[in-house]
Amino acid sequence: MENPIGEGGLRLHEWVFANASWREQHGQTGGDSNADSEVIDEVSTGVGAHIMGRKMFGGGAGPWDESWTGWWGEDPPFHTPVFVLTHHPRVPLPLQGGTTFTFVTDGIHAALEQAQAAAGAKAVAIAGGASAIQQYLAAGLLDELYLHVVPLLLGAGERLLVDVGDPTLHQVKVVQGPTVTHIKYRIVH
Amino acid sequence: MENPIGEGGLRLHEWVFANASWREQHGQTGGDSNADSEVIDEVSTGVGAHIMGRKMFGGGAGPWDESWTGWWGEDPPFHTPVFVLTHHPRVPLPLQGGTTFTFVTDGIHAALEQAQAAAGAKAVAIAGGASAIQQYLAAGLLDELYLHVVPLLLGAGERLLVDVGDPTLHQVKVVQGPTVTHIKYRIVH
Repeated sequence: MENPIGEGGLRLHEWVFANASWREQHGQTGGDSNADSEVIDEVSTGVGAHIMGRKMFGGGAGPWDESWTGWWGEDPPFHTPVFVLTHHPRVPLPLQGGTTFTFVTDGIHAALEQAQAAAGAKAVAIAGGASAIQQYLAAGLLDELYLHVVPLLLGAGERLLVDVGDPTLHQVKVVQGPTVTHIKYRIVH
Repeated sequence: MENPIGEGGLRLHEWVFANASWREQHGQTGGDSNADSEVIDEVSTGVGAHIMGRKMFGGGAGPWDESWTGWWGEDPPFHTPVFVLTHHPRVPLPLQGGTTFTFVTDGIHAALEQAQAAAGAKAVAIAGGASAIQQYLAAGLLDELYLHVVPLLLGAGERLLVDVGDPTLHQVKVVQGPTVTHIKYRIVH
């Protein structure tokens, strides 16, 4: 509960939290303006809805304990509708800053349809975790994969790209940040 | 035997084989000149000796069948002394083009000493496989890690960076090739 992405796992996100673009979006001042800022702006302004797996939302397996409202407090960093893949129904959970969690029990295609309707002209992002990304990639529903390569070796973890078949990926964009490299791939259908 | 790096695995190296720098080094003409060429030149001119694991050299486990001279034919692409980590002694094997395979039975430190003596002012490269790289990284003997990120999902494979402790990596160089991204890390000692 105290280390939801593993011991030391938050170091994966340091490049985000230290960035001026992120800090401005979250009512903070200061931070670094650099090549990472472009990536942060691109992702946050271009995305109109998120999808995430049950484990990423947290709260344990099985029927919901409705006192659990996610890892992110009162004002989660998504600022869009978020569709949570789950086997257990739950009423929608509106939080501050534009984030509403909607719980989808009828599968990844249904979640995608709802997310696309909510996103309008903007993109739908699969926020994670690894299993959710794998399911959408394996189903041929993912158009882009945007990797943020942080040079940090955690002791263990999920493999991102297993059991996803043999998709064809074309590298379309590379951004070199001060400490991190961002690589965007288009998935050829 | 027919797919030493896995079915379809040679697609990992297509960016090399199609490059003019590689082709020129191997007596061929044509090919593409692009950002990858810089990486190929950097690696080939800067390296004075290679180290590889027994599995990468091939020929199966246990005592040597000396009819096995590696996967690469009469003129292997290393063009330097190559030190093969093994538990089984074997006399050195000189091939064409400057490649001599020397078989080292007394461990990774001994192999590194021999390789450094052979390399002179140039670098020693750990050619692979994953286990050899892991052993040198875990022992704190690796100074740089140069990743060539090819957007190809093979069905299975070794994880490169497991059981290597918690080294500190600093990104020092990123090269965007047409299809592949190259990221060089310095390992902080």
